Amino acid sequence: MESVNHIGIAVKSIDEAIQYYIEILGLKLIAIEEVQSQNVRVAFIDAGNIKLELLEPLGEGAVSKFIEKRGEGVHHIAFDVTDIRTRMRELSEKGVRLLQDVPKPGAGGAEVAFLHPKSSYGVLYELCENDKMGE
Amino acid sequence: MESVNHIGIAVKSIDEAIQYYIEILGLKLIAIEEVQSQNVRVAFIDAGNIKLELLEPLGEGAVSKFIEKRGEGVHHIAFDVTDIRTRMRELSEKGVRLLQDVPKPGAGGAEVAFLHPKSSYGVLYELCENDKMGE
Repeated sequence: MESVNHIGIAVKSIDEAIQYYIEILGLKLIAIEEVQSQNVRVAFIDAGNIKLELLEPLGEGAVSKFIEKRGEGVHHIAFDVTDIRTRMRELSEKGVRLLQDVPKPGAGGAEVAFLHPKSSYGVLYELCENDKMGE
Repeated sequence: MESVNHIGIAVKSIDEAIQYYIEILGLKLIAIEEVQSQNVRVAFIDAGNIKLELLEPLGEGAVSKFIEKRGEGVHHIAFDVTDIRTRMRELSEKGVRLLQDVPKPGAGGAEVAFLHPKSSYGVLYELCENDKMGE
Protein backbone atom coordinates (compact mmCIF):
# COMPACT_ATOMS: atom_id res chain seq x y z
CA MET A 1 0.00 0.00 0.00
CA GLU A 2 1.77 3.14 -1.20
CA SER A 3 -0.63 5.84 -0.01
CA VAL A 4 -4.29 6.62 0.50
CA ASN A 5 -6.02 7.67 -2.74
CA HIS A 6 -9.40 8.62 -1.30
CA ILE A 7 -11.98 8.13 1.43
CA GLY A 8 -15.38 6.98 0.15
CA ILE A 9 -18.35 8.59 1.93
CA ALA A 10 -21.93 7.38 1.40
CA VAL A 11 -24.49 10.19 1.09
CA LYS A 12 -28.15 10.20 0.15
CA SER A 13 -27.76 13.17 -2.19
CA ILE A 14 -24.55 14.56 -3.68
CA ASP A 15 -26.37 17.77 -4.60
CA GLU A 16 -27.12 18.40 -0.92
CA ALA A 17 -23.88 17.18 0.67
CA ILE A 18 -21.60 18.91 -1.84
CA GLN A 19 -22.72 22.33 -0.55
CA TYR A 20 -21.35 21.42 2.87
CA TYR A 21 -17.96 20.39 1.52
CA ILE A 22 -17.56 23.38 -0.78
CA GLU A 23 -19.29 26.24 0.99
CA ILE A 24 -18.74 25.29 4.65
CA LEU A 25 -15.46 23.36 4.63
CA GLY A 26 -14.04 25.35 1.69
CA LEU A 27 -12.88 22.35 -0.33
CA LYS A 28 -12.91 22.09 -4.14
CA LEU A 29 -14.97 19.82 -6.36
CA ILE A 30 -12.82 17.89 -8.86
CA ALA A 31 -15.49 16.09 -10.88
CA ILE A 32 -18.77 14.22 -10.76
CA GLU A 33 -19.31 10.99 -12.70
CA GLU A 34 -21.43 7.85 -12.70
CA VAL A 35 -19.84 4.47 -12.00
CA GLN A 36 -22.13 1.91 -13.61
CA SER A 37 -20.29 -1.10 -12.18
CA GLN A 38 -21.19 0.05 -8.68
CA ASN A 39 -24.53 1.69 -9.47
CA VAL A 40 -23.46 4.99 -7.94
CA ARG A 41 -22.90 8.61 -8.79
CA VAL A 42 -19.63 9.91 -7.33
CA ALA A 43 -18.27 13.37 -6.59
CA PHE A 44 -14.53 13.70 -6.07
CA ILE A 45 -13.45 16.48 -3.75
CA ASP A 46 -9.89 17.74 -3.35
CA ALA A 47 -8.85 17.54 0.30
CA GLY A 48 -5.21 18.50 -0.32
CA ASN A 49 -3.22 15.32 0.10
CA ILE A 50 -6.11 12.93 -0.65
CA LYS A 51 -9.56 13.00 -2.22
CA LEU A 52 -12.95 12.57 -0.62
CA GLU A 53 -15.32 10.53 -2.79
CA LEU A 54 -19.00 11.17 -2.13
CA LEU A 55 -21.06 8.16 -3.18
CA GLU A 56 -24.76 8.52 -3.98
CA PRO A 57 -26.70 5.35 -4.78
CA LEU A 58 -28.42 5.33 -8.19
CA GLY A 59 -30.52 2.34 -7.13
CA GLU A 60 -30.08 -0.95 -5.28
CA GLY A 61 -26.47 -1.81 -4.49
CA ALA A 62 -23.78 -1.88 -1.84
CA VAL A 63 -24.02 1.84 -1.12
CA SER A 64 -27.83 1.95 -0.84
CA LYS A 65 -27.68 -1.05 1.52
CA PHE A 66 -24.98 0.65 3.58
CA ILE A 67 -27.10 3.80 4.00
CA GLU A 68 -30.20 1.76 4.83
CA LYS A 69 -28.34 -0.15 7.54
CA ARG A 70 -25.98 2.47 9.00
CA GLY A 71 -27.01 5.85 7.62
CA GLU A 72 -24.74 8.25 5.77
CA GLY A 73 -21.05 8.12 6.64
CA VAL A 74 -17.61 6.77 5.80
CA HIS A 75 -17.98 3.79 3.47
CA HIS A 76 -14.43 2.80 2.52
CA ILE A 77 -10.75 3.80 2.41
CA ALA A 78 -8.90 3.36 -0.90
CA PHE A 79 -5.17 2.61 -1.14
CA ASP A 80 -3.17 3.37 -4.28
CA VAL A 81 -1.44 0.25 -5.56
CA THR A 82 0.77 -0.19 -8.61
CA ASP A 83 -0.05 -3.77 -9.58
CA ILE A 84 -3.50 -4.65 -8.34
CA ARG A 85 -3.54 -8.26 -9.55
CA THR A 86 -0.28 -9.13 -7.79
CA ARG A 87 -1.43 -7.33 -4.65
CA MET A 88 -4.74 -9.19 -4.67
CA ARG A 89 -2.94 -12.52 -4.99
CA GLU A 90 -0.50 -11.68 -2.18
CA LEU A 91 -3.28 -10.60 0.17
CA SER A 92 -5.34 -13.66 -0.66
CA GLU A 93 -2.34 -15.90 0.08
CA LYS A 94 -2.03 -14.17 3.46
CA GLY A 95 -5.62 -15.14 4.27
CA VAL A 96 -7.36 -11.82 3.47
CA ARG A 97 -10.85 -12.27 2.05
CA LEU A 98 -11.43 -10.28 -1.15
CA LEU A 99 -14.84 -9.24 -2.48
CA GLN A 100 -13.70 -9.77 -6.10
CA ASP A 101 -11.63 -12.42 -7.86
CA VAL A 102 -10.65 -9.94 -10.57
CA PRO A 103 -10.49 -6.11 -10.45
CA LYS A 104 -13.52 -4.15 -11.61
CA PRO A 105 -13.74 -0.71 -13.23
CA GLY A 106 -13.92 2.18 -10.73
CA ALA A 107 -14.20 5.96 -11.04
CA GLY A 108 -11.52 7.91 -12.93
CA GLY A 109 -10.66 4.93 -15.15
CA ALA A 110 -9.15 3.01 -12.21
CA GLU A 111 -9.22 -0.73 -11.60
CA VAL A 112 -10.43 -1.52 -8.11
CA ALA A 113 -11.01 -4.41 -5.70
CA PHE A 114 -12.30 -4.48 -2.14
CA LEU A 115 -11.07 -6.35 0.95
CA HIS A 116 -13.77 -7.81 3.17
CA PRO A 117 -14.17 -5.73 6.36
CA LYS A 118 -14.17 -8.94 8.41
CA SER A 119 -10.52 -9.39 7.39
CA SER A 120 -9.72 -5.73 8.13
CA TYR A 121 -11.09 -5.15 11.65
CA GLY A 122 -14.27 -3.50 10.43
CA VAL A 123 -12.87 -1.27 7.66
CA LEU A 124 -13.80 -1.75 4.00
CA TYR A 125 -10.50 -1.20 2.17
CA GLU A 126 -10.29 -0.70 -1.58
CA LEU A 127 -7.23 -1.29 -3.75
CA CYS A 128 -7.11 1.27 -6.53
CA GLU A 129 -4.76 1.12 -9.54
CA ASN A 130 -4.23 3.84 -12.11
CA ASP A 131 -6.79 6.38 -10.93
CA LYS A 132 -6.63 9.40 -13.27
CA MET A 133 -9.21 11.49 -11.44
CA GLY A 134 -7.87 14.91 -10.53
CA GLU A 135 -4.60 14.60 -12.44
CA MET B 1 -9.12 22.64 5.80
CA GLU B 2 -5.59 22.29 4.47
CA SER B 3 -5.24 18.50 4.25
CA VAL B 4 -6.22 15.27 5.96
CA ASN B 5 -3.99 14.49 8.95
CA HIS B 6 -5.34 11.06 9.79
CA ILE B 7 -8.27 8.65 9.71
CA GLY B 8 -9.39 7.42 13.14
CA ILE B 9 -10.36 3.75 13.28
CA ALA B 10 -12.05 2.20 16.32
CA VAL B 11 -10.72 -1.26 17.24
CA LYS B 12 -11.32 -3.51 20.22
CA SER B 13 -7.63 -4.33 20.60
CA ILE B 14 -4.66 -2.48 19.12
CA ASP B 15 -2.44 -5.47 19.84
CA GLU B 16 -4.59 -7.62 17.56
CA ALA B 17 -5.39 -5.12 14.80
CA ILE B 18 -1.84 -3.80 14.51
CA GLN B 19 -0.66 -7.17 13.20
CA TYR B 20 -3.01 -6.80 10.23
CA TYR B 21 -1.77 -3.33 9.35
CA ILE B 22 1.93 -4.17 9.69
CA GLU B 23 2.22 -7.79 8.62
CA ILE B 24 -0.58 -8.03 6.05
CA LEU B 25 -0.85 -4.50 4.62
CA GLY B 26 2.87 -3.81 5.08
CA LEU B 27 2.45 -0.41 6.76
CA LYS B 28 4.69 1.01 9.50
CA LEU B 29 3.85 1.76 13.12
CA ILE B 30 4.80 5.33 14.11
CA ALA B 31 3.97 5.28 17.83
CA ILE B 32 1.51 4.13 20.47
CA GLU B 33 0.31 6.46 23.22
CA GLU B 34 -2.56 6.99 25.64
CA VAL B 35 -4.86 10.00 25.26
CA GLN B 36 -6.38 10.55 28.69
CA SER B 37 -8.78 13.27 27.54
CA GLN B 38 -10.51 10.73 25.30
CA ASN B 39 -9.95 7.64 27.43
CA VAL B 40 -8.28 5.78 24.57
CA ARG B 41 -5.03 4.15 23.60
CA VAL B 42 -3.98 5.12 20.08
CA ALA B 43 -1.58 3.64 17.54
CA PHE B 44 -0.46 5.86 14.68
CA ILE B 45 0.35 4.05 11.45
CA ASP B 46 2.15 5.61 8.48
CA ALA B 47 0.01 5.25 5.34
CA GLY B 48 2.29 7.38 3.14
CA ASN B 49 0.44 10.65 2.64
CA ILE B 50 -1.69 10.40 5.80
CA LYS B 51 -1.77 8.48 9.06
CA LEU B 52 -4.20 5.85 10.27
CA GLU B 53 -5.02 6.21 13.97
CA LEU B 54 -6.19 3.01 15.65
CA LEU B 55 -8.30 3.85 18.70
CA GLU B 56 -8.75 1.32 21.49
CA PRO B 57 -11.09 2.24 24.34
CA LEU B 58 -9.52 2.20 27.81
CA GLY B 59 -12.97 2.27 29.42
CA GLU B 60 -16.29 4.04 28.96
CA GLY B 61 -16.21 6.83 26.39
CA ALA B 62 -17.06 7.87 22.85
CA VAL B 63 -14.99 5.09 21.27
CA SER B 64 -16.34 2.29 23.45
CA LYS B 65 -19.88 3.49 22.73
CA PHE B 66 -19.14 3.62 19.00
CA ILE B 67 -17.90 0.00 19.02
CA GLU B 68 -20.86 -1.15 21.10
CA LYS B 69 -23.32 0.43 18.69
CA ARG B 70 -21.66 -0.04 15.28
CA GLY B 71 -18.76 -2.44 15.77
CA GLU B 72 -15.16 -1.78 14.81
CA GLY B 73 -14.58 0.58 11.88
CA VAL B 74 -13.86 4.13 10.73
CA HIS B 75 -14.57 6.53 13.58
CA HIS B 76 -13.49 9.96 12.29
CA ILE B 77 -11.52 11.92 9.70
CA ALA B 78 -9.12 14.59 10.95
CA PHE B 79 -8.25 17.75 9.01
CA ASP B 80 -5.08 19.72 9.64
CA VAL B 81 -5.86 23.32 10.47
CA THR B 82 -3.51 26.18 11.31
CA ASP B 83 -5.66 28.20 13.72
CA ILE B 84 -8.18 25.93 15.36
CA ARG B 85 -9.94 28.60 17.43
CA THR B 86 -10.60 30.84 14.42
CA ARG B 87 -11.72 27.86 12.38
CA MET B 88 -14.10 26.73 15.13
CA ARG B 89 -15.62 30.20 15.31
CA GLU B 90 -16.04 30.42 11.52
CA LEU B 91 -17.70 27.01 11.30
CA SER B 92 -19.96 27.79 14.22
CA GLU B 93 -21.02 31.04 12.53
CA LYS B 94 -21.88 29.03 9.41
CA GLY B 95 -24.23 26.86 11.46
CA VAL B 96 -21.97 23.84 12.02
CA ARG B 97 -22.52 22.15 15.38
CA LEU B 98 -19.29 21.57 17.30
CA LEU B 99 -18.82 18.98 20.04
CA GLN B 100 -16.52 21.30 22.02
CA ASP B 101 -16.55 25.01 22.82
CA VAL B 102 -12.78 25.03 23.24
CA PRO B 103 -10.14 22.70 21.76
CA LYS B 104 -9.03 19.73 23.85
CA PRO B 105 -5.66 17.93 23.94
CA GLY B 106 -5.31 15.15 21.36
CA ALA B 107 -2.58 12.64 20.48
CA GLY B 108 0.84 13.90 19.43
CA GLY B 109 0.50 17.13 21.41
CA ALA B 110 -2.22 18.43 19.08
CA GLU B 111 -5.24 20.55 19.95
CA VAL B 112 -8.43 19.03 18.56
CA ALA B 113 -12.15 19.66 18.23
CA PHE B 114 -14.91 17.62 16.62
CA LEU B 115 -17.76 18.62 14.30
CA HIS B 116 -21.08 16.93 14.97
CA PRO B 117 -21.80 14.24 12.33
CA LYS B 118 -25.33 15.59 11.98
CA SER B 119 -23.81 18.77 10.51
CA SER B 120 -21.48 16.77 8.26
CA TYR B 121 -23.74 14.28 6.50
CA GLY B 122 -22.87 11.40 8.80
CA VAL B 123 -19.11 11.90 9.09
CA LEU B 124 -17.40 12.78 12.38
CA TYR B 125 -14.77 15.34 11.36
CA GLU B 126 -11.96 16.42 13.65
CA LEU B 127 -10.00 19.66 13.43
CA CYS B 128 -6.39 19.06 14.41
CA GLU B 129 -3.82 21.78 15.03
CA ASN B 130 -0.10 21.29 15.58
CA ASP B 131 0.09 17.50 15.53
CA LYS B 132 3.74 16.49 16.04
CA MET B 133 3.19 12.76 15.72
CA GLY B 134 5.46 11.20 13.08
CA GLU B 135 7.54 14.32 12.43
